[in-house]
Amino acid sequence: MKATPYRRGFASDNNAGIHPDVLNAIFDANSGHTRAYGDDTYTESAVNKFKAHFGNDIEVYFVYNGTGANVLGINAATDSYHAVICANTAHIHVDECGAPERFTGCKLLAVSTPDGKLSVDGIKPHMHGFGVEHHAQPKVVSITQATELGTVYRPEEIAELSKFVHENGMLLHMDGARLANAAVFLDSELRAITKDVGVDVLSFGGTKNGIMVGEAVVFFNRKLARNFKYLRKQGMQLASKMRFISVQFDALLSNDLWRKNAAHSNRMAKRLSREVKKLPGIRITQPVEANGIFIKVPQDKISVMQSERFFYVWNEETSEVRWMTSFDTTEEDILSFVDFLKKNLT
Amino acid sequence: MKATPYRRGFASDNNAGIHPDVLNAIFDANSGHTRAYGDDTYTESAVNKFKAHFGNDIEVYFVYNGTGANVLGINAATDSYHAVICANTAHIHVDECGAPERFTGCKLLAVSTPDGKLSVDGIKPHMHGFGVEHHAQPKVVSITQATELGTVYRPEEIAELSKFVHENGMLLHMDGARLANAAVFLDSELRAITKDVGVDVLSFGGTKNGIMVGEAVVFFNRKLARNFKYLRKQGMQLASKMRFISVQFDALLSNDLWRKNAAHSNRMAKRLSREVKKLPGIRITQPVEANGIFIKVPQDKISVMQSERFFYVWNEETSEVRWMTSFDTTEEDILSFVDFLKKNLT
Amino acid sequence: MKATPYRRGFASDNNAGIHPDVLNAIFDANSGHTRAYGDDTYTESAVNKFKAHFGNDIEVYFVYNGTGANVLGINAATDSYHAVICANTAHIHVDECGAPERFTGCKLLAVSTPDGKLSVDGIKPHMHGFGVEHHAQPKVVSITQATELGTVYRPEEIAELSKFVHENGMLLHMDGARLANAAVFLDSELRAITKDVGVDVLSFGGTKNGIMVGEAVVFFNRKLARNFKYLRKQGMQLASKMRFISVQFDALLSNDLWRKNAAHSNRMAKRLSREVKKLPGIRITQPVEANGIFIKVPQDKISVMQSERFFYVWNEETSEVRWMTSFDTTEEDILSFVDFLKKNLT
Amino acid sequence: MKATPYRRGFASDNNAGIHPDVLNAIFDANSGHTRAYGDDTYTESAVNKFKAHFGNDIEVYFVYNGTGANVLGINAATDSYHAVICANTAHIHVDECGAPERFTGCKLLAVSTPDGKLSVDGIKPHMHGFGVEHHAQPKVVSITQATELGTVYRPEEIAELSKFVHENGMLLHMDGARLANAAVFLDSELRAITKDVGVDVLSFGGTKNGIMVGEAVVFFNRKLARNFKYLRKQGMQLASKMRFISVQFDALLSNDLWRKNAAHSNRMAKRLSREVKKLPGIRITQPVEANGIFIKVPQDKISVMQSERFFYVWNEETSEVRWMTSFDTTEEDILSFVDFLKKNLT
Repeated sequence: MKATPYRRGFASDNNAGIHPDVLNAIFDANSGHTRAYGDDTYTESAVNKFKAHFGNDIEVYFVYNGTGANVLGINAATDSYHAVICANTAHIHVDECGAPERFTGCKLLAVSTPDGKLSVDGIKPHMHGFGVEHHAQPKVVSITQATELGTVYRPEEIAELSKFVHENGMLLHMDGARLANAAVFLDSELRAITKDVGVDVLSFGGTKNGIMVGEAVVFFNRKLARNFKYLRKQGMQLASKMRFISVQFDALLSNDLWRKNAAHSNRMAKRLSREVKKLPGIRITQPVEANGIFIKVPQDKISVMQSERFFYVWNEETSEVRWMTSFDTTEEDILSFVDFLKKNLT
Repeated sequence: MKATPYRRGFASDNNAGIHPDVLNAIFDANSGHTRAYGDDTYTESAVNKFKAHFGNDIEVYFVYNGTGANVLGINAATDSYHAVICANTAHIHVDECGAPERFTGCKLLAVSTPDGKLSVDGIKPHMHGFGVEHHAQPKVVSITQATELGTVYRPEEIAELSKFVHENGMLLHMDGARLANAAVFLDSELRAITKDVGVDVLSFGGTKNGIMVGEAVVFFNRKLARNFKYLRKQGMQLASKMRFISVQFDALLSNDLWRKNAAHSNRMAKRLSREVKKLPGIRITQPVEANGIFIKVPQDKISVMQSERFFYVWNEETSEVRWMTSFDTTEEDILSFVDFLKKNLT
Repeated sequence: MKATPYRRGFASDNNAGIHPDVLNAIFDANSGHTRAYGDDTYTESAVNKFKAHFGNDIEVYFVYNGTGANVLGINAATDSYHAVICANTAHIHVDECGAPERFTGCKLLAVSTPDGKLSVDGIKPHMHGFGVEHHAQPKVVSITQATELGTVYRPEEIAELSKFVHENGMLLHMDGARLANAAVFLDSELRAITKDVGVDVLSFGGTKNGIMVGEAVVFFNRKLARNFKYLRKQGMQLASKMRFISVQFDALLSNDLWRKNAAHSNRMAKRLSREVKKLPGIRITQPVEANGIFIKVPQDKISVMQSERFFYVWNEETSEVRWMTSFDTTEEDILSFVDFLKKNLT
Repeated sequence: MKATPYRRGFASDNNAGIHPDVLNAIFDANSGHTRAYGDDTYTESAVNKFKAHFGNDIEVYFVYNGTGANVLGINAATDSYHAVICANTAHIHVDECGAPERFTGCKLLAVSTPDGKLSVDGIKPHMHGFGVEHHAQPKVVSITQATELGTVYRPEEIAELSKFVHENGMLLHMDGARLANAAVFLDSELRAITKDVGVDVLSFGGTKNGIMVGEAVVFFNRKLARNFKYLRKQGMQLASKMRFISVQFDALLSNDLWRKNAAHSNRMAKRLSREVKKLPGIRITQPVEANGIFIKVPQDKISVMQSERFFYVWNEETSEVRWMTSFDTTEEDILSFVDFLKKNLT
């Protein structure tokens, strides 16, 4: 069936489709039989691509989506009586319908932050009650890179967090749904902002950077992966025709596709932010470091703006909205939206 | 990356790839933006295809895989203190690593059956303790169509079960991972062996019949679906780029593709079984009604047979193996394997 | 065996023993056989005592402890994808080792409060995302009466909360571990500050008011109790020799014992607070309304004070400590401690 | 309140009251304050009594009841993707309303047995799928001593089981709700039929042998106890006024009370069985080794027998009933019941 697609908008990078290289990879893998559940050469190849980026001393498991990756990664790092410290904007706290609590049994401790970033000072107030059985024991600190507010942790910020976390016998989890965008912003290799600065377990995002379906759980702390295959299966995240997930990551990590997609997406966000910040009645509220723009706009203009290019309101009370760009955003999308804003905001 | 695929074997219908029609549907949907999480016209169209088959008074939700569909469908039908009665061969009992117990809290009560099929007499011994708080309360009977042993419930068998189940205040769940194969065997429409004979909630399989990734939970008892969207999200089974799951089902339910694929697969199984049953030292142990053949073979020949065409041993002690055919099994696959067997079994 | 008991201190009301009337009731019930699990006349009598206080249209279930009562009461009011809003000082949030999350699957949303009390304004920021599957759905507001900070909700405060909560399709849970102390402070009947002001489900405390072991879950919203007996059993909170739990509550609710115990305890707290507030270097930080005193003391005096009469430090950073009185605190305990403070604080 | 107790019957050993020595111990401990949650000298003393019986290299934790002890003991020995093998008569399987599944996430695999006892041959059919992620991984074998059918494992039977279990990397759990009755039957010390024959974790029963409330989880495999305090708290099984649980066990393990109570109870069962086996229309179906008698009686006599001395029907279809004796059963109870039977069965 042929549906009329929505016009490209700025709602989310997951409103985009599949990058042609990724879809071609699926096509190319669609021949003959392979063993199911990941015991196949396609998956082996994709895992090797991860090792080329992160080193050989890692474990990689493909799952279906970001919630699955986050929940199972945290599950592997915790017992039921543990607590997970995260930003109050964290996807695991506000966008996963309580899946982390239900599946892991852990308590989530949310830290209020202006920019979506945790700091040692921010998490310290939750670092107590160790050894006291009445309190859920803090065990994991979870950060998001790039954050849900479009900001990016600098490598030294992550290193400082991981140092503190490890000194306290805890573990560092990273939700890297938009890790590629962060790496591009920092002009960094993937491992330099993850493994090399002390991350223990990473949700490596694909869907928001051009693949169709899939996410990877990457263990830098390999002890945590020891029984992960059971958790993945019991967690309903084991794909039977795994090769078609694997080849998407293979394509994403080949020919620098991950970087090109993210670079384009970041560039479009930067471009859009540059154009609109001159407009009246507008205030950009967060540094535009990845592919999201957080921006206060006139309340009474939101509807008309949304009907031109769809996007989500971030905070109704403050009239703050979010614009996301994606790998397939075009300059024309930007320019025509800016044109529209110029005409309608003045 | 180009891996050398395994030769087509008889390991499982999920070792096959994607039917071209399904892959084309993904290609065709890969244009522009759509809202994420199923709020799109592709998903609407796919749901309508289900309604064309099952009637308008149903609810349909797409999830990632069979385990997800089974666990969440049962979750929607139960409270944590309930029990689920199933065959001791049921996928939910032996192939989901305890996901049903962990996610729903329910106890599974397994009934020993010779042919993978439950009957009223088989479930009766578990129908006690109602109202007694010490006992997990039987609430769901779960059947698999076609069964894990390649047998098929007749519509009147399902009707008898559902009548008994409903009379006892319980609900009937069907794991329809191979529902299409059953419908073809019975020369039946899909609804005639599900909704029309009293099934309350169905896991509608796709992956084993030619799609890439996806399964549908179909509620005929719509009350059970009331809060299902939350269970799906919390259950880590909500796809962001949903359109690419939806269009696969749209394709599967268009042009009778579901039926053609299953018919082919069944035919190949029948053909293979006809050829091999004349061979010495072989005994087919279950009626070949869908696309699986259960067969005792000489213990010392298994390895060489597996190296020719891969398959799984079902029961090491009894030397019983399983051969599954799929939508892409060719006559040549059958004939060359039979040839091989003739040469090697005698 | 005869251990040397600690000297009576101000650590907690659960450091006290059993009130003689309660222990006598256990003695008196220790004759002959009764059916187990609550199907006995002792339990019937105890339930009737609750009905005399709260009206006949309630359901009462005895459990082992406060954590059990809170978790199971909330469990009865929620599905796994719900959220529970509570104060950041709430016992369910900071003192139950994540039991609510693990057992119910729900997310806890903690509101920062100066005095342990929730208000409509305080919970409003969490009242969003209704109907959106990505967000745990707010379903229960849980308040503690008296609060963990020794403050007491006025009936009209509870009424305002329950009105708001019910208007939003939610439910009001009360952790009444020290409900008796609140009732005494308010010079109120038990039902006037619970059922009559809109509480749906109450954890009725016993252990902190003179009984040995036990807590009651009291449903004013009886629909919530429909399947509670299963939750209690599955929640490992069903006592076999129930009569010995029941008679404790029977005694507590007879002859105004609950009131006398709480009145004494409150009076002792008031007395102690009156005496110490004149002392130098001391600042009482919360209104002394129930049986707890929160008080800043000189950091360097804490150890010596604890060795005289044991108590817990509430907040190491601010040098704030907590003194709890109990039904068996004597005037001599108060006076001798005050004497000691006078000598040691100056 | 004074209820009329039921006449002593043969319903269950938990229909009995509290042994006077136990109640006196509670009385004696009811003086002054102690720290809550087990940090007290009464608890220390009780733990030392356990060590006197079982050796110093154990860990002991008191909980509220048998379900709590079983579920938490198993929880300490498993991950969520594990399976627990038990008899199909096991309390954890048929009498705990699915608490093990819900709290641990594990699958229970029930073995059909004629006498309530597991054997190596009985559990072998479930010993497969190790290392295969689709299958819940067998990790614990749970046996009940004495069994729910009143039979008793010989030490060598347990040793054989534990050897097999350990050779397969698994653990042995014992539900010892009636361990004392088994020890008396075997004329054995407690450790000789638990720790010395390879049990890893034991639920040590008290309630069925004369105490009021409480059960102990005893770890012989101390590694399993490492984080048990958190599991106990999160499992809602941590008593605040712990001393009153502890002193009951202290009394039970002093002056051979555990043995005297169990010996009396066993003797009464033996006596009753001797008397009734000569009666017409009666068939004792299990060896009377502990304090339970399983016996087929004429269907039409059950009601009148129950009205004389209450007991439970074990199996309606086979007209099999269960008579349990307890520490307070008197010879007169036996003789008058036998008299009654003589008059009414002939």
